[in-house]
Amino acid sequence: MSRAYNFCAGPATLPESVLKQARDEMLDWRGTGMSVMEMSHRSDAFVEIAETAERDFRELAGISDDYAVLFMQGGASSQFSTIPLNLLGSKTSADYVNTGIWSKKAIAEAERYASVNIVASSESSGFTSIPDPSSWQVSADAAYLHYTPNETIGGVEFDFIPDSGSAPLVADMSSTILSRPVDVSKFGLIYAGAQKNIGPSGLVVVVIRKDLLGKARQETPTMMNYQVIADHGSMYNTPATYSWYLAGLVFKWLKAQGGVKAMGEINRRKAEKLYGFIDNHEFYANPIDPRFRSWMNVPFTLQDDALNSAFLEGANARGLLNLAGHRSVGGMRASIYNAMPEAGVDALIQYMAEFAQERG
Amino acid sequence: MSRAYNFCAGPATLPESVLKQARDEMLDWRGTGMSVMEMSHRSDAFVEIAETAERDFRELAGISDDYAVLFMQGGASSQFSTIPLNLLGSKTSADYVNTGIWSKKAIAEAERYASVNIVASSESSGFTSIPDPSSWQVSADAAYLHYTPNETIGGVEFDFIPDSGSAPLVADMSSTILSRPVDVSKFGLIYAGAQKNIGPSGLVVVVIRKDLLGKARQETPTMMNYQVIADHGSMYNTPATYSWYLAGLVFKWLKAQGGVKAMGEINRRKAEKLYGFIDNHEFYANPIDPRFRSWMNVPFTLQDDALNSAFLEGANARGLLNLAGHRSVGGMRASIYNAMPEAGVDALIQYMAEFAQERG
Repeated sequence: MSRAYNFCAGPATLPESVLKQARDEMLDWRGTGMSVMEMSHRSDAFVEIAETAERDFRELAGISDDYAVLFMQGGASSQFSTIPLNLLGSKTSADYVNTGIWSKKAIAEAERYASVNIVASSESSGFTSIPDPSSWQVSADAAYLHYTPNETIGGVEFDFIPDSGSAPLVADMSSTILSRPVDVSKFGLIYAGAQKNIGPSGLVVVVIRKDLLGKARQETPTMMNYQVIADHGSMYNTPATYSWYLAGLVFKWLKAQGGVKAMGEINRRKAEKLYGFIDNHEFYANPIDPRFRSWMNVPFTLQDDALNSAFLEGANARGLLNLAGHRSVGGMRASIYNAMPEAGVDALIQYMAEFAQERG
Repeated sequence: MSRAYNFCAGPATLPESVLKQARDEMLDWRGTGMSVMEMSHRSDAFVEIAETAERDFRELAGISDDYAVLFMQGGASSQFSTIPLNLLGSKTSADYVNTGIWSKKAIAEAERYASVNIVASSESSGFTSIPDPSSWQVSADAAYLHYTPNETIGGVEFDFIPDSGSAPLVADMSSTILSRPVDVSKFGLIYAGAQKNIGPSGLVVVVIRKDLLGKARQETPTMMNYQVIADHGSMYNTPATYSWYLAGLVFKWLKAQGGVKAMGEINRRKAEKLYGFIDNHEFYANPIDPRFRSWMNVPFTLQDDALNSAFLEGANARGLLNLAGHRSVGGMRASIYNAMPEAGVDALIQYMAEFAQERG
């Protein structure tokens, strides 16, 4: 088929122009006689690719020199252990906010290294909202406060940056990074698996305030030691070079779209259209507190679960792909990251309207 | 330029036909309407890609069902800690053979978790040979014996499989995997960073005998726990999907070349040609004990180091790239992995002959 609209939560759709450039450069990057994936990571050509990507990322996200940017491997899930191993220092406890499945995974891994204090949880209400910060029980001696600004599976997103007091604030931004402006200076550490808003899987980007480096526990694997990775410009060993290159192409594309501010406006519009349509049609429902609905991941249900298969089949036939919800929650989910064009959201809405009319 | 001959030690050259296929499939993999790097790792299409790659790899390397094959992230360097964390079990020491820079890196990392016994070392002779096994001091209670069958930087390679007694044998095969037939049944664990003989960086393949699973220490990060990765078919989290796909294309290419046996004959011929030329020309020298010269990485020096720059410049002008030796040893190094065609070795030899004649 021609290019479909791919609503997968990750690995996710990439800008078509990025893929075209990657295709055109596959056998010979700018006259070097080789593909980027064949280049020594220490070659001038790759170092230029890597440094340009970091510079563009810093510019897009507004990251000051107080922070190191690391291009690591192992996905966000590896960071679930890397974070306590590096940030606990002499402390023994960390604060975590529980707003869904990804929060819980981060918590479960941290519990293997630290005493975890659950500052707040929306579990009792089925993770459909964000706990009111006035109720949070922040610890006095936590090494850091961890939260998940956007829950990819639940489709719930913070519209504020929590106050972590004197403890550094740590955020899993895998599914929200670069989707709207964020004040990075409020954070001690931000991490993001690449396969949603940055590039292909196999890369995780870490933004860490430099004063937090150098505190890794003795048992930390060297490849997980932020200080080591920072000291070597993310090239202590061979990094995921091709993923890094593709991330760089995505950053260039984002800049051409007007950057994160312009992207945020488009994303707001895409989300408002889709939620607006759902709210206006009894046939569809979204369970999330409207204030905290994710701009990136839009879960929804049909009036009758028995129609799910027919809905997905019809969607597939129109090239609207991967709309099934996560196996842990069921229903539908449309992930509408940066690279999902507004026309894709329009096509989805049109299909949903027709399906509801036929079957509702 | 047109495609060059790229002698980089890794990331290394890939078969041109693999890159062409990747290029042609970049925007739409077999009518799915998306690139492989945009696919859910849990989709039927990607699961087929992943399973086919594993099946082909097992067939090529001759891996029985007694072994699990894991597609992990973080490179071979991550395995330096993953191995002791998983294999020590209730033991406190491990045996290591020291044959060069990569052995030493593995040893340094293992020392953070275990008491390391250096069974044998060729350091005093400048790592130019392999220690005679009759002199090895194997421990009675080692959790495993680790060695590096091919030292990428030094260019020294085992031509035999060591006897590790009752301890499992562990091998870093990053730069030798699939380059010649190996009896996998002699090993407890084999690991290989992909960026030499398998595919792009960002992937590390682990072959582990199943009875060695399930012994990870408590502090092992979940993403480094072999049992967890094996139980989830290497999809506990999102794997490096695009690298996995490319590895699969390389495996198909290897099969089309006649498999590892045919490849071994080609590699032997390539190596013998190049070493033969070096030995026959006083202008060039290779310091390695002839019995243990690597088939994959051929270091050599010129008669006069002052000519190094001119040699590299002339090589670049002919599209013979990345011949500079590793920064830690200097001189030259030609890496001639599976994907380096025999014609590339011929072109290198011709250039070396002409250069020696002009400057010798």
